[in-house]
Amino acid sequence: MTSEELSVRKLEQGDFDKGFLTVLGHLTTVGDVTREMFEEQIRRRDAVGGYHTVVIEDNSRIVATASMVVELKFIHGCSKVGHIEDVVVDPAYRGKRLGLKLIEALIESARGDGCYKVILDCAEGNVPFYEKAGLVRKEVQMVRYLDR
Amino acid sequence: MTSEELSVRKLEQGDFDKGFLTVLGHLTTVGDVTREMFEEQIRRRDAVGGYHTVVIEDNSRIVATASMVVELKFIHGCSKVGHIEDVVVDPAYRGKRLGLKLIEALIESARGDGCYKVILDCAEGNVPFYEKAGLVRKEVQMVRYLDR
Repeated sequence: MTSEELSVRKLEQGDFDKGFLTVLGHLTTVGDVTREMFEEQIRRRDAVGGYHTVVIEDNSRIVATASMVVELKFIHGCSKVGHIEDVVVDPAYRGKRLGLKLIEALIESARGDGCYKVILDCAEGNVPFYEKAGLVRKEVQMVRYLDR
Repeated sequence: MTSEELSVRKLEQGDFDKGFLTVLGHLTTVGDVTREMFEEQIRRRDAVGGYHTVVIEDNSRIVATASMVVELKFIHGCSKVGHIEDVVVDPAYRGKRLGLKLIEALIESARGDGCYKVILDCAEGNVPFYEKAGLVRKEVQMVRYLDR
């Protein structure tokens, strides 16, 4: 299919067999995630609510994905914020605006959920990409890794 | 009480009457949040799970607060990440390390929940404060405000 024909849909249980974790592996360490762990994590996230994971499939393989978790706030009249996370496109499918399609789908979900804003953290080099999706540079992200 | 004696505790329903929203108002717009909205939001967050809001009280007034939402991931072996949000100290209580106490309490909760890292977004000027809490500068935060 041409990239224009590739559509965005929600993550499904069957995506374990379509290389969902392989695509995530282009972003960061996935580790040993079994089918059972994957299915249980989808169930947990569904039970909690507020999770949106979207994917793009081509030839029965997941080639791009992005997630969002919606946070319930007290500020702004007990409003909500969408945190966009784990955006990744298979290297063979980059430059086809698939990432942009995913971000736009998540922004629509954020609107639907009543979020007053969406936020995300990205590497300096990805700022121009997210600017195309209408985001603007705001603050500094900081991290602390925890020894477990 | 001296600042050393002020302890961190979880947010409670009764904190509406102790100026919880007033303290948040030193951070950003709170808007019209009624007692009913506040109580309902606590109940919703409790039902969802993964929310941690801590406060410091002095003379029956909330003088500092910070929140964290724990996100369920697929990466890193279906691990978790703690998103620290809405950290604010009453201006009259700044410089007493209360913010640090709150962050440390949330980091302990993140460890307890099995998070592999905690992240937050802050203004450039607050980077040195969070460095004291063991966080390091990582990426760029981006935002898109949504018209509703």
